[in-house]
Amino acid sequence: MWRSLRPIGHSDASGGYRRYAWTGADADCRLWFQAQAEARGLDYEVDRNGNQWAWLGDPARGDAVVTGSHLDSVPDGGAFDGPLGVVSSFAALDELRARKVQFRRPLALTNFGDEEGARFGLACVGSRLAAGQLSKEKAYELRDAEGVSLPQAMERAGYDPDAIGPDPERLARIGAFVELHVEQGRALDLTGDQVGIASAIWPHGRWRFDFRGEANHAGTTRLVDRRDPMLSYAETVLAARREAELAGAVATFGKISVEPNGVNAIPSLVRGWLDSRAADQSTLDQTVTAIEKAAREYADRHGIDLSVVRESFTPVVEFEHALRDELGRLLGGEVPVLGTGAGHDAGILSSVIPTAMLFVRNPTGVSHSPAEFAAEDDCVAGVRALADVLEGLACS
Amino acid sequence: MWRSLRPIGHSDASGGYRRYAWTGADADCRLWFQAQAEARGLDYEVDRNGNQWAWLGDPARGDAVVTGSHLDSVPDGGAFDGPLGVVSSFAALDELRARKVQFRRPLALTNFGDEEGARFGLACVGSRLAAGQLSKEKAYELRDAEGVSLPQAMERAGYDPDAIGPDPERLARIGAFVELHVEQGRALDLTGDQVGIASAIWPHGRWRFDFRGEANHAGTTRLVDRRDPMLSYAETVLAARREAELAGAVATFGKISVEPNGVNAIPSLVRGWLDSRAADQSTLDQTVTAIEKAAREYADRHGIDLSVVRESFTPVVEFEHALRDELGRLLGGEVPVLGTGAGHDAGILSSVIPTAMLFVRNPTGVSHSPAEFAAEDDCVAGVRALADVLEGLACS
Repeated sequence: MWRSLRPIGHSDASGGYRRYAWTGADADCRLWFQAQAEARGLDYEVDRNGNQWAWLGDPARGDAVVTGSHLDSVPDGGAFDGPLGVVSSFAALDELRARKVQFRRPLALTNFGDEEGARFGLACVGSRLAAGQLSKEKAYELRDAEGVSLPQAMERAGYDPDAIGPDPERLARIGAFVELHVEQGRALDLTGDQVGIASAIWPHGRWRFDFRGEANHAGTTRLVDRRDPMLSYAETVLAARREAELAGAVATFGKISVEPNGVNAIPSLVRGWLDSRAADQSTLDQTVTAIEKAAREYADRHGIDLSVVRESFTPVVEFEHALRDELGRLLGGEVPVLGTGAGHDAGILSSVIPTAMLFVRNPTGVSHSPAEFAAEDDCVAGVRALADVLEGLACS
Repeated sequence: MWRSLRPIGHSDASGGYRRYAWTGADADCRLWFQAQAEARGLDYEVDRNGNQWAWLGDPARGDAVVTGSHLDSVPDGGAFDGPLGVVSSFAALDELRARKVQFRRPLALTNFGDEEGARFGLACVGSRLAAGQLSKEKAYELRDAEGVSLPQAMERAGYDPDAIGPDPERLARIGAFVELHVEQGRALDLTGDQVGIASAIWPHGRWRFDFRGEANHAGTTRLVDRRDPMLSYAETVLAARREAELAGAVATFGKISVEPNGVNAIPSLVRGWLDSRAADQSTLDQTVTAIEKAAREYADRHGIDLSVVRESFTPVVEFEHALRDELGRLLGGEVPVLGTGAGHDAGILSSVIPTAMLFVRNPTGVSHSPAEFAAEDDCVAGVRALADVLEGLACS
């Protein structure tokens, strides 16, 4: 399976993947999913929001066990984030058939569309639309860097954008959703485990810090006469690291925009985006409050106007405890339970159906990068764990 | 004169000027210069490099006194940087005629083309070409942000790009060049003088600092596992300010480029440009060496690869002492002599002909910004000083 999926959307320049929603690479990934489903005699369908499904058994029973993930990627992403969960779903089904189990509940495999949001800027579009967390109107406003709207992109890819929207009937078919994913940190590597169970997705948000000073000539303006916003920005970057360390949170300034951005010009505006996440809401609030307080002190000292805007916020997602405990029991009780800072389709769906996640060890913790990796042994252990879970949930 | 020049290339959005080489606004500025020359009965000509000249007397004598500056602007620049020198040249000639002086040497007024380099990225193109400091081949490689080359832009503006290049015959006509310019700092404001004389243009250079780390997920990567180049960049920005303060130099990080520049991505690359200048070469060397040393320490501590490339360097320009002393004597000996961190056409020409500069007080020191300002009284004092200098040098 890996061999046929691997070349799709691969960039020789970066060594990473460029599989963005409703592009040619995305279409090739979708054809791959359909071919895998049909090769196994599963009932293939695409829902109104472009998510793909492969069914074994009667969806109308309403208690299906579903597993899957996504095939799209971030810019120059790795091979595992998303695809490992889809490939493992098919492999786990093959394993269950080899075990000659009897299915007492329907089983479905799925590929959610546009999980990474690399093209339109919003993550988990396919699952958000289905779960009613993104309205058709808001989805129609999404545009890519070239100005192509989401409905235009869907139409060009041969899909009907008029049909998108909440899909409660389809979600009502599902009794439990389990997503397997490569870990995007090093927790399993540090505990020495091949597989883990998700406890929760950390609350996280994005804040835009606008530092406004005064544009001036970099050669002739005395240091004491300057109102240079780059200095306050730099101090805030270091404060974010310090405060995150103190709180046990994470905080990152990874995106910046500078005006006029000239070598010989003191900037008039430095705009920096803070991404911060923590295990619980109060830790996150404390961290961001401390960073903003430090930034205001620096800004005041240098005559800089600072405005801070929260651009997005996602509260903590606790996966259902009953399903999580069931997974632990099915896997023998020795499996570590861990939180994660990353968003997933499983996090979106957990608002409407019982949902759980399995993580496969990532020896470096690197993700969203061509260097993302999981060892073959660990991937096989992931498939076995997923098969054990599906067997326990769906088979007699 | 100001009234007719003021609207050209003015942006209502920013309140500043956008007069870039070989654009419509530039053509309008050139027509303005020609009209001013002809209204005074001067012999108007454009040289092979697009610089404008207005002659009184016979150029062939070879000992002309020339004054002028430039009419183009930086993006959203002020009204005075450049135009004050050109307007003052015409006003000083009017003043000399009112004084009914006799000219014993030819006089010329000039507008040098593309001084700011706002469009093609290289400053003082008109004077550099004339003085042989920029070859025709190198000039042909210059491109603007839209990919239009300098020769294409000249051709579209109705000029012959084939003719550009060194112009020693024209420069041989000049016995002395005096450029009047608004000060781009606050030295005169601090001493309480309306007019000053330039001693030298500080040596200055641009260095590119490439901090390379490892792209990773901003939500899931533990702080201790990160190789985040933004941290080393931030520490270096603060070190630059500290080292410049210690040395009495200036150092600025005003331009930055980040990859992948995503809110939820730890950067793989942060590229920052350092502009640094000092009164003398050894101070500048010490400052930049200290900044680079600090940057390397930070980079090593965070596992960041750092490369530093010097992209450009201009050594100190000392204006000719004899001419400078002569100006001081002509202005009564009480005029302060000051260095400047900014480049000028006068700095380029000083390599081939005796050159001097007059500065007019800038009450805020702000330049390259719509807020750039000089009081009317000070501008009038500048015209009077320029007329005194021209009378002393060119009249009997």
